[in-house]
Amino acid sequence: MLLDASQSQLVLVDYQTRLMPAIFEAEAVAKNAVRLGEMARLVEVPIWGTEQNPSKLGENLPEIRALCQRTLAKMHFSGAEEGLGEWLRVPVKAPQGNARSLPKHLQKPAAAEERNTIVIAGCEAHVCLLQTALDLLEDEFEVWVVTDACSSRTERNRDAAFDRLAGAGAELVTTEMVGFEWLRTAEHPRFRELQALIR
Amino acid sequence: MLLDASQSQLVLVDYQTRLMPAIFEAEAVAKNAVRLGEMARLVEVPIWGTEQNPSKLGENLPEIRALCQRTLAKMHFSGAEEGLGEWLRVPVKAPQGNARSLPKHLQKPAAAEERNTIVIAGCEAHVCLLQTALDLLEDEFEVWVVTDACSSRTERNRDAAFDRLAGAGAELVTTEMVGFEWLRTAEHPRFRELQALIR
Amino acid sequence: MLLDASQSQLVLVDYQTRLMPAIFEAEAVAKNAVRLGEMARLVEVPIWGTEQNPSKLGENLPEIRALCQRTLAKMHFSGAEEGLGEWLRVPVKAPQGNARSLPKHLQKPAAAEERNTIVIAGCEAHVCLLQTALDLLEDEFEVWVVTDACSSRTERNRDAAFDRLAGAGAELVTTEMVGFEWLRTAEHPRFRELQALIR
Amino acid sequence: MLLDASQSQLVLVDYQTRLMPAIFEAEAVAKNAVRLGEMARLVEVPIWGTEQNPSKLGENLPEIRALCQRTLAKMHFSGAEEGLGEWLRVPVKAPQGNARSLPKHLQKPAAAEERNTIVIAGCEAHVCLLQTALDLLEDEFEVWVVTDACSSRTERNRDAAFDRLAGAGAELVTTEMVGFEWLRTAEHPRFRELQALIR
Repeated sequence: MLLDASQSQLVLVDYQTRLMPAIFEAEAVAKNAVRLGEMARLVEVPIWGTEQNPSKLGENLPEIRALCQRTLAKMHFSGAEEGLGEWLRVPVKAPQGNARSLPKHLQKPAAAEERNTIVIAGCEAHVCLLQTALDLLEDEFEVWVVTDACSSRTERNRDAAFDRLAGAGAELVTTEMVGFEWLRTAEHPRFRELQALIR
Repeated sequence: MLLDASQSQLVLVDYQTRLMPAIFEAEAVAKNAVRLGEMARLVEVPIWGTEQNPSKLGENLPEIRALCQRTLAKMHFSGAEEGLGEWLRVPVKAPQGNARSLPKHLQKPAAAEERNTIVIAGCEAHVCLLQTALDLLEDEFEVWVVTDACSSRTERNRDAAFDRLAGAGAELVTTEMVGFEWLRTAEHPRFRELQALIR
Repeated sequence: MLLDASQSQLVLVDYQTRLMPAIFEAEAVAKNAVRLGEMARLVEVPIWGTEQNPSKLGENLPEIRALCQRTLAKMHFSGAEEGLGEWLRVPVKAPQGNARSLPKHLQKPAAAEERNTIVIAGCEAHVCLLQTALDLLEDEFEVWVVTDACSSRTERNRDAAFDRLAGAGAELVTTEMVGFEWLRTAEHPRFRELQALIR
Repeated sequence: MLLDASQSQLVLVDYQTRLMPAIFEAEAVAKNAVRLGEMARLVEVPIWGTEQNPSKLGENLPEIRALCQRTLAKMHFSGAEEGLGEWLRVPVKAPQGNARSLPKHLQKPAAAEERNTIVIAGCEAHVCLLQTALDLLEDEFEVWVVTDACSSRTERNRDAAFDRLAGAGAELVTTEMVGFEWLRTAEHPRFRELQALIR
C-alpha cells in the first residue's frame, strides 16, 4: 500500500536540544525531520510535535518546533499516554484553496474528516518513539515509521526498535519514500519544490 | 514456490540515461538487467520497459530498450497508474516453434493465456520500482523483485524498498535464481546459452 | 505491545565462570545481565537463574548469582526440561510496601498472581538460551529475549538464534527497552535510579 | 520447536569436486557438512546425498560421499524432481541396539516409521539447495536449512536464498544448533563425542 497525503498526519517526537548531542547520526536525522515537515507543508498534511520533560531536556530544535502546529509536553515516554491520540482524532478540514489544481487523488470533498495514517519519526528510537508508535498501533492508527529520521544514542538500540516496530505492524519507510508517495506523479503542482528539498 | 517461465513476464523499470549516473552500483545493476532480458528471450518470456518523464530523464539505456517489446512513457512514479497492468493482462500466445524440444514443464497448449507472474527490476528501487510493484501486488499479480538488478541513489533507500516489498508479499530473488528457475534442468535446450550469460 | 513490570519475571541463563571467557562480547553481555537484574529489583520483578552442569562449567558470575532468588542446576540444555516452568508458574505476591507511591499502572491488588511475561537472556544464545526460550513459548509463556544481554562463542550462531526466536514468536528487545517499559514515565519513583544504571 | 533426532533425516546437496573451488567460504562450509554427517551418525539419523550432473561437475567431496548411505545423481537442479522425495518417504527402522541407554526422548518403539523432518544443506544455496528445499516444503516435509553448511559462489546470492527459504517456511539453523537439539542433554551417551566434533 502506498501513502495517501489526504489521509496522513505527521508526528515528530522529541528532537530536543539537550538530547540530540548524544544521538547517533543526529545531524542527518534532524535534517530528515525538517525535510519531512517541509514536505508535509507542501501537501497540507498536519504536523504535530512532542517533547519529553522539556524543563530537563529542552525544547525541540527550533527549526523543527516551528514546523509543528502544536507540541505536546509529556512525562510518559509514550505521547499516547498523555493525549496525543486525541489530537490525532480531531477531524481536519481538507484544504480548499488550490484544490482544483491538485491531481485527482488529492481532490477530496472539503468536509472535515479524520486522518488515520500517522507518519512518525523521532528520538530515541527505542524509547519514546517506540512506545508512542506501539501505543498508536494499539489505538488502531496506521503507523508509518520514517527510519532515516529516527535514531537512538546507539545504533544497536535504534535498529532493534525498527525490527520490533515492523513486527508489530508498523510500515518502515524513508523520508524520500514519504515525499514521492504523497505526490505520486511528476505532474503534481508541488513536484519541483519537493524535489528541491530532497536532492 | 519456484518461478515458471510459461507464466512469467519481465518488466524493466526506468534504467534511464540521465538517471543511472547517480545510482548506487549502477554498472552492476544495468548488467543484471541486460542479463534478465537476454534470459527472458531464451525462454520466450515477454519483456516490457517503462521510462519516467523521458523528455527530462532520457530514454532507457539502449541495450535495455532494445530488449523490450514495448516501453511505456509515464509521469506517475507507478507504471500501473498509466496502463502497465493492461499491457500485462493481454493474453500472450505460447511459443509454438520448438515446443516439442522443450522440457515437460514448458510444454503448454498453444492457446493464448494470461501470464500472472511479473518479474520486475529497476530504478529507483524506493520510488518508481517500489510504487509500480506495490500497485501490481494490489492488482493481484504475483510480483518477483530481482534485487541485484534494482538500485537507488543511496544504499539505505534501496534496502528499505526491499524490506517493504517483502512485507507486502513480493518475492525477492536474484538474477541467477530467475535464470535457473526458468530452466529447471541442465537438460533444457537453452541451458548452455543461459549459463554463458551468467558466468 | 509494551512490557508490564507487574506481569514480568526475569530469567538469566548460564552466565557461568568457565563458559564466559569463550563468549563473543562477553564483558558487555554480562554487564547488561547485571543491569537487567538491578532494574528488575527496582521494580520488584522476580529474578531466576539457571546453570548448565555447574560441576563442569562453574557457577554463574557472582554478581549475577547474587541477584537471583533461586538458581536452577540442570543437565538438559533447556531449563524448561528440568522444572523452570514450574518455578515461573508459582503465583507471586505483588509488592505492598510503597505501592501507593507507585504510578497507576503498577498499582495492583495485593493478591498473589501468576506472571506470564518472561524476560530472558543468557549464553549460549543458540543452545541453552534458545532451547529454554522455545520451550517456554510452547508452554504458552510470553517470551521477551534481551538480545544485548545474550551471546554465543560466535557472532553468527548468536544472530541465527535471534532470527529463529523471532520467527517462533519471541519479542526481541534490548536492556534499555526493558528498563524504560518497566517504568513507562519519568515520574516513576525509581526513574533516577534506573537512569543511573543505564547511562 | 526443537529438532527431534528420531524424526530427522539429513540431506547433503551437491558438494562436488569441480563446483566447490568456486564457492564462497567453501572450506568452512564443507567442514560443517562433514560435522553434520558425523553428528547424524552419532544419533542414527539417515544421511542422503545428491550430485548435479556428476559427469561434468564431479562427485561429492570424498569425505562427504562416504557419509551418505545413497547419493542421487540428477540433471534437474531440484533433487525432488528426480525422486529424492521417494527416498525420504521410505520408513526407517528405528535403532535397536543401545536404545535402552538412550535418553527418554530417543526411546521409540522399534517399528519402522517415516521421518518427516529434513535437515538439509548444500551448494549452490540459491540454485540446487533452494530448489530442492522449496520442492520438499511443497511436498509437506518440514525443512530445516543449515545455513553455515550452505553457500553459493557469491555471498549475496547465498543470503538471498536464506531470506527466501525463511519466507517459504523453512527453519534456518546452524550446525551447532542441530547437534545440541539432536542430543537435548549433556547426559546423552554421545554428548562427549558430539562436543568433540564441534569445539
